[in-house]
Amino acid sequence: MNIGIAGLGLIGGSLALALKERHHVTGFDTDPRTRDAARAAGIDVVASLEALIPADAVIVATPMHAVVPTLVLLAPRAGTAVLLDVASVRGPVETFAASAPADCRIVGLHPMAGRSGAGFGAASAELLEGRPFLVVPTARSDTAAMALAGTLARDAGGEVTVCSAAQHDRIVAVLSAVPLTFAAALALTGADTVDGNLASLSGPGFGDSTRLALTSPELGSAMLLANGENVRAALTRARAILDEVDRAIASGDAAALNAILERAAQARRALS
Amino acid sequence: MNIGIAGLGLIGGSLALALKERHHVTGFDTDPRTRDAARAAGIDVVASLEALIPADAVIVATPMHAVVPTLVLLAPRAGTAVLLDVASVRGPVETFAASAPADCRIVGLHPMAGRSGAGFGAASAELLEGRPFLVVPTARSDTAAMALAGTLARDAGGEVTVCSAAQHDRIVAVLSAVPLTFAAALALTGADTVDGNLASLSGPGFGDSTRLALTSPELGSAMLLANGENVRAALTRARAILDEVDRAIASGDAAALNAILERAAQARRALS
Repeated sequence: MNIGIAGLGLIGGSLALALKERHHVTGFDTDPRTRDAARAAGIDVVASLEALIPADAVIVATPMHAVVPTLVLLAPRAGTAVLLDVASVRGPVETFAASAPADCRIVGLHPMAGRSGAGFGAASAELLEGRPFLVVPTARSDTAAMALAGTLARDAGGEVTVCSAAQHDRIVAVLSAVPLTFAAALALTGADTVDGNLASLSGPGFGDSTRLALTSPELGSAMLLANGENVRAALTRARAILDEVDRAIASGDAAALNAILERAAQARRALS
Repeated sequence: MNIGIAGLGLIGGSLALALKERHHVTGFDTDPRTRDAARAAGIDVVASLEALIPADAVIVATPMHAVVPTLVLLAPRAGTAVLLDVASVRGPVETFAASAPADCRIVGLHPMAGRSGAGFGAASAELLEGRPFLVVPTARSDTAAMALAGTLARDAGGEVTVCSAAQHDRIVAVLSAVPLTFAAALALTGADTVDGNLASLSGPGFGDSTRLALTSPELGSAMLLANGENVRAALTRARAILDEVDRAIASGDAAALNAILERAAQARRALS
């Protein structure tokens, strides 16, 4: 197929590298240096967003704040191209799709993959290998468009899961957004407590617990703000458990603490 | 030197395996199966705690609740043996040492090392390689005893840091105990939200954030309860940052969120 990719950062660049083995991939990025880097890596790069069309599909992989504006530009001129987007929060795209031109087709395709690096320089096909790809229908999805999203996800090395936008946004609030806020709170508390001389004491436990604090602040705050309601609800649930822990410590209740930690260990084993 | 080790679990077993290359190590454990396993691994095992003496040093590496009772038994009969203990909270040992027999010598030797396994079966010399060993003086420490603790830490492959009991307990509250409570809260929130079909969606970010939830519940609750005051103070500080995050999301304040996440990323980089 002919696949256009708008935005050649970590995710868009990785998709381009993974899909070009089986498809003709054309890429665009607003940054000329990114376009040069992608061209040097063997990707067919064009000089404008519009030049990605005609295509069988265009994948919007811009930073999150630009996803809906890019879909707005593409929707009226997409022709038969299916529009896919990798936004890690589905609410805003769902709202746009409901009022998009009647003949356009829009499907969410969110690869649950990441690393602390950013930009095309950090992109690689391996980043996507074996990762879950969430395929999320919108008011402008049909069976053929959903099937195409599934095919591209598998061709990029991913494992397909279909879920609704509401389900998607509840899940990423708990699996990505709240862990980011917890990592940030732990890292800042650590820095307040441990002076420079003792910084070497932080070991793998603290390192793992705070790794997500290395997320790019722009990506992180976009993820938290665009999904605010779900994130706040999940934060409230997680903090209720911290309340329970704090009460058990305050009252010296070893049995209560053991029970919480036992349930938590079971939950962790079930989730990974 | 002749080194006795009381308690041959993950830490005591690893110390025995690491130190027996350069010292004559004698071990004791209350569990006969552990004694058999240690003997099979080439450790010279005795049938009672008292039989560890005479020695140049005895390392108490029992579960935390048994550390002070074991020191109480050893202190009157230690002779010239320096008593070391690996307790990961120093307050209770400090209190005991202040009223221990005047001629005994007690020094804390806490290797900051761990893994999710437990018992002698999970022990290995590699667990301690390159890890920080906190050497903590008590009211019953002298220069020779501190030097001996440092020598054993280095002979076990560790890197020595000397700190006071108060400093130690503040640091482990922030680097170990609060991260455990956060991991437990995240794992439980995840299990409440993500149903069985979607469990496969949790990726490396969530996995790292919740790894400490696999800590043995007994070890975890002992660590939280024995250091309750410091843990609650650190929890309060960490939760104040979550309050800040929650307020910024509620008011849609991207600049405030960016600033928190930027500071957190800097803190994380400085701590690891």
